[in-house]
Amino acid sequence: MPRTSLPDGALQDDALQDGLLAAGTTTLSSQLLKRGLRNVFIAGLGAASPQRVRMAGPAYTLRFVPAREDLAVSGSVARPDNPQRFAVENIPPGHVLVIDAGGRPGCGTLGGILVERLFQRGAAGVVVDGALRDAEELAQAKLPLFSRGFAAPPSYGGLIPVETQGAIDCGGVAVFPGDIVVTDHDGAIVIPEHLAGEVARDALEQERVERFAKQRVARGFPITGLYPLGEAMREAYQQWVARGEQE
Amino acid sequence: MPRTSLPDGALQDDALQDGLLAAGTTTLSSQLLKRGLRNVFIAGLGAASPQRVRMAGPAYTLRFVPAREDLAVSGSVARPDNPQRFAVENIPPGHVLVIDAGGRPGCGTLGGILVERLFQRGAAGVVVDGALRDAEELAQAKLPLFSRGFAAPPSYGGLIPVETQGAIDCGGVAVFPGDIVVTDHDGAIVIPEHLAGEVARDALEQERVERFAKQRVARGFPITGLYPLGEAMREAYQQWVARGEQE
Amino acid sequence: MPRTSLPDGALQDDALQDGLLAAGTTTLSSQLLKRGLRNVFIAGLGAASPQRVRMAGPAYTLRFVPAREDLAVSGSVARPDNPQRFAVENIPPGHVLVIDAGGRPGCGTLGGILVERLFQRGAAGVVVDGALRDAEELAQAKLPLFSRGFAAPPSYGGLIPVETQGAIDCGGVAVFPGDIVVTDHDGAIVIPEHLAGEVARDALEQERVERFAKQRVARGFPITGLYPLGEAMREAYQQWVARGEQE
Amino acid sequence: MPRTSLPDGALQDDALQDGLLAAGTTTLSSQLLKRGLRNVFIAGLGAASPQRVRMAGPAYTLRFVPAREDLAVSGSVARPDNPQRFAVENIPPGHVLVIDAGGRPGCGTLGGILVERLFQRGAAGVVVDGALRDAEELAQAKLPLFSRGFAAPPSYGGLIPVETQGAIDCGGVAVFPGDIVVTDHDGAIVIPEHLAGEVARDALEQERVERFAKQRVARGFPITGLYPLGEAMREAYQQWVARGEQE
Amino acid sequence: MPRTSLPDGALQDDALQDGLLAAGTTTLSSQLLKRGLRNVFIAGLGAASPQRVRMAGPAYTLRFVPAREDLAVSGSVARPDNPQRFAVENIPPGHVLVIDAGGRPGCGTLGGILVERLFQRGAAGVVVDGALRDAEELAQAKLPLFSRGFAAPPSYGGLIPVETQGAIDCGGVAVFPGDIVVTDHDGAIVIPEHLAGEVARDALEQERVERFAKQRVARGFPITGLYPLGEAMREAYQQWVARGEQE
Amino acid sequence: MPRTSLPDGALQDDALQDGLLAAGTTTLSSQLLKRGLRNVFIAGLGAASPQRVRMAGPAYTLRFVPAREDLAVSGSVARPDNPQRFAVENIPPGHVLVIDAGGRPGCGTLGGILVERLFQRGAAGVVVDGALRDAEELAQAKLPLFSRGFAAPPSYGGLIPVETQGAIDCGGVAVFPGDIVVTDHDGAIVIPEHLAGEVARDALEQERVERFAKQRVARGFPITGLYPLGEAMREAYQQWVARGEQE
Repeated sequence: MPRTSLPDGALQDDALQDGLLAAGTTTLSSQLLKRGLRNVFIAGLGAASPQRVRMAGPAYTLRFVPAREDLAVSGSVARPDNPQRFAVENIPPGHVLVIDAGGRPGCGTLGGILVERLFQRGAAGVVVDGALRDAEELAQAKLPLFSRGFAAPPSYGGLIPVETQGAIDCGGVAVFPGDIVVTDHDGAIVIPEHLAGEVARDALEQERVERFAKQRVARGFPITGLYPLGEAMREAYQQWVARGEQE
Repeated sequence: MPRTSLPDGALQDDALQDGLLAAGTTTLSSQLLKRGLRNVFIAGLGAASPQRVRMAGPAYTLRFVPAREDLAVSGSVARPDNPQRFAVENIPPGHVLVIDAGGRPGCGTLGGILVERLFQRGAAGVVVDGALRDAEELAQAKLPLFSRGFAAPPSYGGLIPVETQGAIDCGGVAVFPGDIVVTDHDGAIVIPEHLAGEVARDALEQERVERFAKQRVARGFPITGLYPLGEAMREAYQQWVARGEQE
Repeated sequence: MPRTSLPDGALQDDALQDGLLAAGTTTLSSQLLKRGLRNVFIAGLGAASPQRVRMAGPAYTLRFVPAREDLAVSGSVARPDNPQRFAVENIPPGHVLVIDAGGRPGCGTLGGILVERLFQRGAAGVVVDGALRDAEELAQAKLPLFSRGFAAPPSYGGLIPVETQGAIDCGGVAVFPGDIVVTDHDGAIVIPEHLAGEVARDALEQERVERFAKQRVARGFPITGLYPLGEAMREAYQQWVARGEQE
Repeated sequence: MPRTSLPDGALQDDALQDGLLAAGTTTLSSQLLKRGLRNVFIAGLGAASPQRVRMAGPAYTLRFVPAREDLAVSGSVARPDNPQRFAVENIPPGHVLVIDAGGRPGCGTLGGILVERLFQRGAAGVVVDGALRDAEELAQAKLPLFSRGFAAPPSYGGLIPVETQGAIDCGGVAVFPGDIVVTDHDGAIVIPEHLAGEVARDALEQERVERFAKQRVARGFPITGLYPLGEAMREAYQQWVARGEQE
Repeated sequence: MPRTSLPDGALQDDALQDGLLAAGTTTLSSQLLKRGLRNVFIAGLGAASPQRVRMAGPAYTLRFVPAREDLAVSGSVARPDNPQRFAVENIPPGHVLVIDAGGRPGCGTLGGILVERLFQRGAAGVVVDGALRDAEELAQAKLPLFSRGFAAPPSYGGLIPVETQGAIDCGGVAVFPGDIVVTDHDGAIVIPEHLAGEVARDALEQERVERFAKQRVARGFPITGLYPLGEAMREAYQQWVARGEQE
Repeated sequence: MPRTSLPDGALQDDALQDGLLAAGTTTLSSQLLKRGLRNVFIAGLGAASPQRVRMAGPAYTLRFVPAREDLAVSGSVARPDNPQRFAVENIPPGHVLVIDAGGRPGCGTLGGILVERLFQRGAAGVVVDGALRDAEELAQAKLPLFSRGFAAPPSYGGLIPVETQGAIDCGGVAVFPGDIVVTDHDGAIVIPEHLAGEVARDALEQERVERFAKQRVARGFPITGLYPLGEAMREAYQQWVARGEQE
């Protein structure tokens, strides 16, 4: 994905993005927990494609409310100011489209055509606490898509899009526009924008400590004093780091 | 409730309000169903006080998202631009405060002091798809309060208020500012603003037909042809109306 | 309720009905459990009226499926072969109308007029794993009504009646036509028809043993050996029985 | 599957079946929604085998109720009139066995032997709002199987079969015998029998319009005016059709 | 309740108990939230009797697991080492019996006889994340009983008691033996033992501030600066305190 | 896995383990059902790796309760007496770690390092009614892992470990230390220790009967009289056995 023309707010710092992806959601969530943030993981999502699961980028939000029969009709999606269509045409490159669909399983918030358009526009991916549609096609999508699964009916079968770029509830987690969303095989987490840098930095160090522990455990050591790293083992760890992470 | 100084959008027409209340939520929802609206009833709510259950007024909306520990703190409610506090101080007289709390049962979205303030400001009542607090005090409140029950913790124990007067999801039903909310012992329904007049009118006629059916059933008649009223009984009904609703 | 003209299958034996009501659902369910029946209590129901909670009678069943918009319309209830209307006009006196509504909370399976008609026809009461409508009116109904609460929309707002007198799933409990339904303040249980006699008999004896235990506990005795009644206390119990249940 | 000897009611018209499968559940559900049918998708099902997901055929229904310990025993399945066994031996070729299991996850409604028998008898596939058993074996089954997953216990561990060919509730969707069931990677939808022809026809045209949109979006066009197709682009579309769907 | 012979661990300090009860669960939970404790309220419970809702005392815990048919039988409750019976006979005076029943609604964890025995033994009350039985009798019980409602079957119909005085999960809240449980009309909260004193003290002061706010709001003042109390109003508050809480 | 040095209680008898694995959870649960045990299957679990699904071994239990913010902190896992860490370092070889996590989906009860340590220590596998973390790594784990999916946050993000080797509730099923846990593609079942031998034996015979039925069904026979095996076919079955399971 070209990162030369990112708008304000995107992860312009490639090192930050690389760091977040390298750390991964498990270690990042541990770091957030150390800072008192216990409600940052969106549980119960899955990736539409096993080949596309990792992403990190600022949230661009879209919010739906339940359908009312006189408003949620086929024609409503033709208007450019329809928030769903507006979001797809206005999300900045590098951003993650995060959708509040109230967890509803019965209709697809996006399908193949809109996902293709998101890819064309340089979006980083999609996270929705609801369903997607066109499952077979999306298994081949070129960007990560996290959802609660698939549903054949279109979005207006059960939902009305009402707003972009407001604060939303995505699967029980507050998401504000610009929060950093990171996904991998464990799922999706949300990092307050101002914490992304320090959390990434500390997470990378934590990852290194855990690699040390992992190597020792694989050689038969007990976890006591090793994971989490106790004082008695800290010197051994530092020597291992000095040796280039080798025993 | 004084109705002389209502702002634009309130139910200035006393006859309309009286009609909606006289018809009641069962008949109004039948009329909405005839117009194809199947998702207008907010299921699972109860009234805080058995003495205060009936109200009709335009919706003034407030939306919460789940709490994040760094934002949902005691001090956050001191700011006048806190949307919860803003709503309480800015809801127009005669309006119903309708709150999207995501159905969360673990914290109270409003308590005794804010409800008293709503009363002082002339609000018609409250409908929330979440909990209230100060149950004992609210049982004596002077305005109808519909919720999913009670919870002791304050709102910032689990929620952050993010917006007033946006479209919301209240218990699975879309509510737009200005929609007419009607409550009684059966619960709470939401009527699109532009339909309120015709729905109230037709509901009152339907109520009369059902009083006729009820009287006959109470005298031992079968329901066939009577409820719903068939052609064969229409003349008897009209005579009954002409007699002043007496057999 | 006149019991002189009961059809076959109703609880013609007044003593049996009296015994079931005297034993109550707690003791009856203990007796059913002794016979290996663990799934006979319909959890989560409440009585529409605090004055009308006790009933015992054979089940007459009605089954709904979810609504489809082209079938679930106002006119559908005008036909005498509509199963909901058929059930109301054909339930035999003394029977309990047991309704499978799939636990759906959003529409009322019966309202004031149909309940009045059920009363006129001598029905013993209603048990529904769904909602009723006309809450205020039903609080004054003359027969027990157990449901999951109230909803304003009519049944065809969410359901289609499809069958009477089939086997049904009422709140997770199998109910066959003719099974004996008993309700009281603890809720509703379902007794296989052929067990009703022996279960009532044994429950009455169990009730007496528990009265003995209750009296002793109220005087400060520990429960050990008393509840359940151990061998060492059996003679004291029998003397208490011989004394006319007095210490 | 031989289609020469289909009974009345099966999809005798190969073109219809081909059309339904080519259109797929997403486009078919859009067409049903245009006709006002919002509740036709059974959410939350998955295919037992990734190789077998597409089918279209008339529903043959089977209904279970929750088990009662004295009835739900091993021996009960030996009787030819057991509805589960009756269904397997009597479903006509080309039909889809649609099972109402109340969404219960704890027992398997069918296992390897019955599924093999269904295949032998020419059934088109199975849709159940409950579990199947023999997961490893069913991953190799020769017909599509949609369920909520797998459970080891046999059906009588939690369910009693009570009826074939009645109206059922399958995962919140009404299914009548003869309704047309279509499945693919997005899941399972139910089409009222009399609408199948027109829905298939219009869905195929809609599919073509969407192919046009997809091609353009893949070349970088915005979706506005293209998806859904606006008047301004209709001529371009028709030329594309005339060119044999090529730009 | 006589408080002269309390064992170690009970609320021997009447002032503390009085303070906790005077503060109430809403203010206590605000104070716990200020200390970072967000998960102390057990949502969804109700009082068996409207006359008995207030209590404060140390937790005595009892834990159930789901029934297995060979163990959960009538005879199992006759043994004095049955944990349910042991709990009833061994809970110290002034303690609250807090029961982990996994939220199961289908059987009653305690009934009239055991509750009477708890009263005789001086227990402060009962909190259970499951059901009770003997609803009519318990409405007259002499101690507060909080539960998710009522169910007729006995405990061994669905549960096996396995432990007393271990840490438990009561409705999603951790409860350790000795934690202080407080209930009132808003429900039940759990206070870590070592915080009870300071939380009660600060809650009483918070209550006084809120009485001041309430009086002013009732006279028409806006909430801004008043609730929560801002600096500008602090002097007025202190004068009000000095005047004996009178304007 | 070396089975020469198993501690008391492990499946020292290789034949028993082989028998349980050969029979599989479907047939074992049928055998348990014949003995009246209806609640032995833990529904809704999945295997972390498609390559590692089969195991059989005695349960070693670990129990969590919901987190309280002052106790569930990073440092708490450093103590050797932390029950989670104690379990990992003390589970005997050949045992299955069965975890009660209350079904909570939002945090991982174990991750890659602890699972590696469990492997090193010879554990048979893991069954948890909650989430795991480090999904990508665990897909390559060398022992079977059954869970409700994955969550990035560490266990102390939502849970506190409180006990090892107590009776637990794992997904609605009672598990006592030493109960035999068997898993395969259908999921996980729990066999009371004393029944393991007879259940395995009878299950193997049942498996053979079903192979016979399967062969016949695959050749076009109806299931009637064959599955379950009727008297009329028993001789054919015995001849088939005598022929070495060949037609």
